[in-house]
Amino acid sequence: MGLVLGELAKCVGGQLQGDPECPITAVATLQAAGDGEISFLANPRYRKYLSGTRAAAVILSIEHASECPTATITVSNPYAAYARIAALLYPAAALRQEVHANAQIGNNCRIDATAWIGPHCIIEDDVTIAAGVQLQGGCFVGNGSRIGHATTLGPQVTVCHSVDIGARTAVHPGVVIGSDGFGLANDEGHWLKVPQLGRVCIGDDVEIGANTTIDRGALGDTIIEDGVKIDNQVHVAHNVRIGRHTVVAGCTGISGSAVIGRHCRIGGGVGILGHLEIVDHVTVTAMSLVTKSISEPGMYSSGMPAQEHAVWIRNVGSFRGIGELVRKLRRPGKRAGKAE
Amino acid sequence: MGLVLGELAKCVGGQLQGDPECPITAVATLQAAGDGEISFLANPRYRKYLSGTRAAAVILSIEHASECPTATITVSNPYAAYARIAALLYPAAALRQEVHANAQIGNNCRIDATAWIGPHCIIEDDVTIAAGVQLQGGCFVGNGSRIGHATTLGPQVTVCHSVDIGARTAVHPGVVIGSDGFGLANDEGHWLKVPQLGRVCIGDDVEIGANTTIDRGALGDTIIEDGVKIDNQVHVAHNVRIGRHTVVAGCTGISGSAVIGRHCRIGGGVGILGHLEIVDHVTVTAMSLVTKSISEPGMYSSGMPAQEHAVWIRNVGSFRGIGELVRKLRRPGKRAGKAE
Amino acid sequence: MGLVLGELAKCVGGQLQGDPECPITAVATLQAAGDGEISFLANPRYRKYLSGTRAAAVILSIEHASECPTATITVSNPYAAYARIAALLYPAAALRQEVHANAQIGNNCRIDATAWIGPHCIIEDDVTIAAGVQLQGGCFVGNGSRIGHATTLGPQVTVCHSVDIGARTAVHPGVVIGSDGFGLANDEGHWLKVPQLGRVCIGDDVEIGANTTIDRGALGDTIIEDGVKIDNQVHVAHNVRIGRHTVVAGCTGISGSAVIGRHCRIGGGVGILGHLEIVDHVTVTAMSLVTKSISEPGMYSSGMPAQEHAVWIRNVGSFRGIGELVRKLRRPGKRAGKAE
Repeated sequence: MGLVLGELAKCVGGQLQGDPECPITAVATLQAAGDGEISFLANPRYRKYLSGTRAAAVILSIEHASECPTATITVSNPYAAYARIAALLYPAAALRQEVHANAQIGNNCRIDATAWIGPHCIIEDDVTIAAGVQLQGGCFVGNGSRIGHATTLGPQVTVCHSVDIGARTAVHPGVVIGSDGFGLANDEGHWLKVPQLGRVCIGDDVEIGANTTIDRGALGDTIIEDGVKIDNQVHVAHNVRIGRHTVVAGCTGISGSAVIGRHCRIGGGVGILGHLEIVDHVTVTAMSLVTKSISEPGMYSSGMPAQEHAVWIRNVGSFRGIGELVRKLRRPGKRAGKAE
Repeated sequence: MGLVLGELAKCVGGQLQGDPECPITAVATLQAAGDGEISFLANPRYRKYLSGTRAAAVILSIEHASECPTATITVSNPYAAYARIAALLYPAAALRQEVHANAQIGNNCRIDATAWIGPHCIIEDDVTIAAGVQLQGGCFVGNGSRIGHATTLGPQVTVCHSVDIGARTAVHPGVVIGSDGFGLANDEGHWLKVPQLGRVCIGDDVEIGANTTIDRGALGDTIIEDGVKIDNQVHVAHNVRIGRHTVVAGCTGISGSAVIGRHCRIGGGVGILGHLEIVDHVTVTAMSLVTKSISEPGMYSSGMPAQEHAVWIRNVGSFRGIGELVRKLRRPGKRAGKAE
Repeated sequence: MGLVLGELAKCVGGQLQGDPECPITAVATLQAAGDGEISFLANPRYRKYLSGTRAAAVILSIEHASECPTATITVSNPYAAYARIAALLYPAAALRQEVHANAQIGNNCRIDATAWIGPHCIIEDDVTIAAGVQLQGGCFVGNGSRIGHATTLGPQVTVCHSVDIGARTAVHPGVVIGSDGFGLANDEGHWLKVPQLGRVCIGDDVEIGANTTIDRGALGDTIIEDGVKIDNQVHVAHNVRIGRHTVVAGCTGISGSAVIGRHCRIGGGVGILGHLEIVDHVTVTAMSLVTKSISEPGMYSSGMPAQEHAVWIRNVGSFRGIGELVRKLRRPGKRAGKAE
């Protein structure tokens, strides 16, 4: 699919410096782009490639425009403009409309005629599938679940019973939504299963990465609000609530009944304990452990950066006695050296 | 399904204060419960909602009974009593009994007539499926595996060959049991695959959370004993053994040949190194790293709680030189300040 | 399958002490082995079992041969020799050759007559499947992907569109290759999806563990070079490159555009931030967080070993003020004790 530079600039509200009739057929990195290809500069790390680029045009902010040897589209947010232009140049695959012959459809389902239910899908009873929904193949949708308009389920996605998914949401392969939460009552040393009776409610414009799992509520529901973006291999436990436009990076685990605010940025490999609350606009950096509620916006961390192993081992050794050492240092009238 | 309060109290051995004929049809939280609904108080965090509850009855311990404005069932373990009552009020879905027409069944399988093999399941050869087993759809069971009485496999579960699963075990969607362990021999810089020849043996009354993986033994077997409960996205490597009634929370990784005792509680995001042993009744808190055997019952930790980022960065900076600092502090006759 | 000791010794280039005609039918541990079974000693931890073994023969290095009460095959690398001998004694299951009747095959695919496409597989359009490929069942292969000679896909594997997989690669159950990367542009508080236009290219002799996910490139490709071995539940983000013969243990997360060298050993539960580079021959130990490029070969760590909880809590408490404490200690002319 090809468009001309003038159209692209216009559709992102950018200022074009160059030939508006120049045809653009593809996007590429500053290093790789050539004739007919548009690139962008958003991460300052890549600025060094700007002056040598052979791209037909570059999307960037006004401050870097003078360094660019080729046509430019200047905008205030080059990465967002790039995202929009890339979506224009690479439209999503055409929607399919059919219930594949070997999909299994239960009783009393309402499946819109414009939806695609791919091969080997299993749809149980009382399921509602809205217009334009795409189930790519091998998906399972349990009793009474509802999938909203233009939502896509990648291959091998499992949606258990009584799950509600909004519109334009993308669920990537291998995701499980609505599995039982980890609810156990200790009964004289044995663990008794606590029935998991709630649902999962997922909003509009959500994205859920490959092999992520979202458990159903125990009592009450697990809630993912509109515009939340979740990466791969994330674990969302029962009764968690994630507020609008929050992003959660890969391998993070969120324990039961944690409430995460809006516009938060949760890094990769983070652990969030249960029954706590994080306010809006909180950033948690990679591999941190959130052990209690966070009531002020800002950035929080406890990820420990790797060091050369020999140094690390010595530091850990000192750390293991640090409580004791500090106690001694703080005892007035005693010198640290002598306190040993 | 409805029951009366007297029956519920009786079946959990509790003391009823209130009308034994009061009909109960549902469970709900203290805040949400109304007519015909029973609630419970187990976590002290929710005690504040007790005096205002509109539940028809509340399950709680004797010490809180006087604060409750409505009927009470007093028991020594309210959470376990709640679990039992919820199971009575919300019985599991009726068992299905059939081999679905488009399930694939191999040669020489013994499938009990009361089992349910859902659509798109693949059963290889020499498989044994006991009475009441439920395979919900899209499951794979490899050659020579055996699935015990009343065990349930959620959608898209993979059980590889020669795996043995006991009775009344629940395997949630996307779980993989019996995949090859990560056995590699370094051969002049290249990695040679070490054949993984053992099995996986899973006991009775086990629960395995969504997208968890349990590798088969290299030599000898990987063993999950009776009553073990494993959460979502846990990685259990080859030749691990987990003792009875131990629980393992989400995102935890257990390395090869680790032996974990009975009645342990392993938190979320924990790492356990290989070839070590943890005795019975050990608790490991979230995101800790177990690097050597634990020979005494008790609680062990190394998860670092998140702080405000600026403070954390300063602390990490100090930590990176702490080995050196402590060495200086401990040198007698030298002051820390001057030692710089 | 049975072989004689002489053949086994010869095929690993080992020195046999014992009867070359002794038949060997199985492998077993030093403790469990008996008549007709061969064992090995590689990990010094198991040396204590050597003198009491009843194995027919033991593979070991020359230095331990004198302690062995039975026949020996001495080699310089006993574990690699064991791996080769085990592969001889336990040959892989016979290859199947067929497109199963209920697999779905798209248009314009080239599927070699010696490949096996198991039941309930979905092959989209323009897919190439080479000789000897085994798709065990319930796999999805998207438009335009290519799977090389003798590669195996376990059950429920998802290969999205435009993915290239080399020869003799093993992809274990539940793996997802080619899912969209986590590319998002913030647009006034909302997150805009950045189209993920690259591919995934996987080399020869690679192994990918159960439920691991490998995202496609955003621009340019995600690349896994020859001989790389990845364990279970690993998250490989878009545009990552992993060099030849590197191993990555379970539960590790690798962020976007990270470049990992050759012959590296990445431990379990490790986090690697994005847009950084790790040179060849680097080892990162379990649960470490790599926050910046590593330019020197060697071992790096930040995993904190678990301690008894009460001690840990005291240490963490001290740590939380360590930045402040060190600042005071370093102020010349002030004693730490008094500085409080």
